[in-house]
Amino acid sequence: MIVALAGGTGGSKMVHGLALAGGQRDLTAIVNTGDDGEFFGLLVCPDLDINLYCLAGVVADRGWGYADDTFRCLEGLATYGRPAWFGLGDRDMATHIHRTLMMRDGARLSDVVDDLRGRLGVEARVLPMTDDPVRTIITTPTGELRFQEYLVRDGAREEIESIRIEGLDQAAPAPGVIEAIGSADLIVIAPSSPIVSIGTILGVPGVRDALAARRDRVIGVSPIVGGVPVEGPAHRFLRGAGYTECSARQMAEIYADVCATFVIHESDAAEAAGIEALGVRPVLADILMPDRPSRERLARTVIEAAG
Amino acid sequence: MIVALAGGTGGSKMVHGLALAGGQRDLTAIVNTGDDGEFFGLLVCPDLDINLYCLAGVVADRGWGYADDTFRCLEGLATYGRPAWFGLGDRDMATHIHRTLMMRDGARLSDVVDDLRGRLGVEARVLPMTDDPVRTIITTPTGELRFQEYLVRDGAREEIESIRIEGLDQAAPAPGVIEAIGSADLIVIAPSSPIVSIGTILGVPGVRDALAARRDRVIGVSPIVGGVPVEGPAHRFLRGAGYTECSARQMAEIYADVCATFVIHESDAAEAAGIEALGVRPVLADILMPDRPSRERLARTVIEAAG
Repeated sequence: MIVALAGGTGGSKMVHGLALAGGQRDLTAIVNTGDDGEFFGLLVCPDLDINLYCLAGVVADRGWGYADDTFRCLEGLATYGRPAWFGLGDRDMATHIHRTLMMRDGARLSDVVDDLRGRLGVEARVLPMTDDPVRTIITTPTGELRFQEYLVRDGAREEIESIRIEGLDQAAPAPGVIEAIGSADLIVIAPSSPIVSIGTILGVPGVRDALAARRDRVIGVSPIVGGVPVEGPAHRFLRGAGYTECSARQMAEIYADVCATFVIHESDAAEAAGIEALGVRPVLADILMPDRPSRERLARTVIEAAG
Repeated sequence: MIVALAGGTGGSKMVHGLALAGGQRDLTAIVNTGDDGEFFGLLVCPDLDINLYCLAGVVADRGWGYADDTFRCLEGLATYGRPAWFGLGDRDMATHIHRTLMMRDGARLSDVVDDLRGRLGVEARVLPMTDDPVRTIITTPTGELRFQEYLVRDGAREEIESIRIEGLDQAAPAPGVIEAIGSADLIVIAPSSPIVSIGTILGVPGVRDALAARRDRVIGVSPIVGGVPVEGPAHRFLRGAGYTECSARQMAEIYADVCATFVIHESDAAEAAGIEALGVRPVLADILMPDRPSRERLARTVIEAAG
């Protein structure tokens, strides 16, 4: 049984690779919900949906949203003067409507995800990190922004002064999260943001401790190559969280208490010694995942590296 | 100033014809809201939207919905096990989302309609008959159905035992409705159902009296030609409301207290005497509106007939 902790686009590629390498039946993805938010009265859960769509084989080539989707509804909403900067496609909108209706009728987020999973034909388990509302708030020199406002609407152009994750202290792990970590043969920390994706998951009370208790079975994959994030503005989030270094070694340091093995890019071999000094075993590999074969190959490397 | 009372597809054609014949600036449509209902948590107002889309020139050729719309969201909802029998297109969905959000924020239905009117570039005034929720309930041998369940989902196959219009007794005319009727030079009763479209509008307390006070200025157009409804199952609604006759004469009788002139199809000339006997002046014309020129022609006939 393999458990993966994942954020959105970067995380879903790792999850997809693990599904390709080992099958979906023995795979559980625990997914960040800190990026969730309300759009047009609908609850939108970007990271959960990216992982579900990816596992279902219906994710768009760009890495988020439903394949071959149209945007007529969003265009119509723009016509009506509504902010239309968050790319919700027409087919995708059905997911948000269905989720919002289920939750209005009393379902937990994990019930919704399990329902979507079944409807989309996803065999892997997909768990939200928590059923409680958790919202990442970004403070910039301009003021406070919701996560997607900062990232998507404003293009992550501003420096971040601080990051606050509302509701995280009071959140409980979703049903099955602690159990999955406790019983996994292998736990993979996907190459998502250590601050606003993985950091949020680890911040759910009980999750970091559960992971630390299985440290020997935990293997991380660096989201940083050559001092640069593979995708997204991870460097801004790192600085916003008080880290001055943006490197594979810094990633390993953030995860050192929960992770015995850390996979970094071959070109970052010079950082291996620094990682070893943290008590973390470095593994060198090609960790870029531009396509399907590379995802599967990295997943096999991760599985083999963990033994 | 021309006021038209209208339901959905049939009514909107008359409204459109009046707009073509006399311009939108001096036109007010008062529209049935008894068919409104909630779909997927969204307030859908079929008759209002048909009239707005028609006046905006964006109605689909089939007479309802937005032109060239796609149905990806609805198809997705079907995938998630949700009933998808009501044809909500993707662009159309934006209208329902926008309306639902405005009303959640405290707007009245008439505020929403006026906002949509402006956004869609409609110059005519469009008024819901009331801002209060009014819902037509159809009782068949099988049980009670919401209007759209009876008409669209079940295809109006069953006989109707009775028709109840929930909320109608307590409804107040929307702002401007009584004033528009009071000050109109001409009031047109469009060829919509006398029971579930026009009958519902006339049932809003105060509306029938306001119309009766302007009877000489009111002209109706028959929705029945040769004993058969021009569109929709008007005969079923008539029987459900206790009428055994389905004819142009019967229509004139239903409107006799509020309408001095009634336009019937040339082929129904034999009914003219019966209509005159009701104290209603019959006018013979080609009242079918298969296309744009025929709508405009009928509108000119109506305007001239009223003097």
